Amino acid sequence: MSLHLDAEALYTELLAGVRALIVPDVVLVGVWSGGAWLAERLQRDLGLATPHGVISSTLHRDDFSSRGLGSTTDATNLPFSVDGRPIVLIDDVLYTGRTIRAVINELFDFGRPASVQLAVLVDRGGRQLPIQPAYAAARLALPATQQLALDRDDAGQFRFTVQDIQDTKEAR
Amino acid sequence: MSLHLDAEALYTELLAGVRALIVPDVVLVGVWSGGAWLAERLQRDLGLATPHGVISSTLHRDDFSSRGLGSTTDATNLPFSVDGRPIVLIDDVLYTGRTIRAVINELFDFGRPASVQLAVLVDRGGRQLPIQPAYAAARLALPATQQLALDRDDAGQFRFTVQDIQDTKEAR
Repeated sequence: MSLHLDAEALYTELLAGVRALIVPDVVLVGVWSGGAWLAERLQRDLGLATPHGVISSTLHRDDFSSRGLGSTTDATNLPFSVDGRPIVLIDDVLYTGRTIRAVINELFDFGRPASVQLAVLVDRGGRQLPIQPAYAAARLALPATQQLALDRDDAGQFRFTVQDIQDTKEAR
Repeated sequence: MSLHLDAEALYTELLAGVRALIVPDVVLVGVWSGGAWLAERLQRDLGLATPHGVISSTLHRDDFSSRGLGSTTDATNLPFSVDGRPIVLIDDVLYTGRTIRAVINELFDFGRPASVQLAVLVDRGGRQLPIQPAYAAARLALPATQQLALDRDDAGQFRFTVQDIQDTKEAR
């Protein structure tokens, strides 16, 4: 891996970026799994009263028929009312936008938010849908054969992993 | 109306902007009704072989329960396969992004496009979802009490209408 991405340094940037998006009554919702870890720590570091939510894209993915139900099906957990709420959606890596479309649909299954803004650690380009983050701590380009994901070690520190994938249809 | 928006001049800009988004096998899909008029003329002016599609947001709107079925329910007409297709979605006015979320869901009911890009005549800001156009011929701010829409006269010329609305929940 020639690419060096310091996930902890980028988290510090993300914290500042998300702080600027905070409005009264806002809640953070992290996309399972990397975004959920980020939302958990952001909620704590920002001292937000309402606990963060977690959302899974599984049930709304456009490749659901070929992927089927995975172990993340019941990862969605929104411990607040979504209706009329300003929501900041958090994800680790933004790529095609298909995951974000899916999780927004999942969110709307729970109610009608006042607004949904998106903040991500890394925007790797390659968008296939007209989705853009309000904040991205880094923007970079990666070959389609590389999958970038956030990992968390036993001490709770973030790091990125890059995997070579055969089937680029797995792109999210 | 103090605002002067020359819809025909903006259409010329849009034509150039959409031309830059054309890739092999692309199709234009216009959001009913203003976007559909634009897509019809763009398809002709760009000399695209495949006829344009028309899409209605009615069935997927997040305020469907309060609006119910209108006269536009069956406006959707996609005379081509959506699967694996690069799609350029055309709309007259981009505002909250809720209409675009709805029409993308409607599109995905018909198949899984390779990509969806958005081009609009006017981006009036006020986004409530993380949706951004690849191209906007104009960007401007309007009070929430004003509704901006494209109209077409008997000669097929475009013009904008601005209406004062009471209930700003009508915002699209």
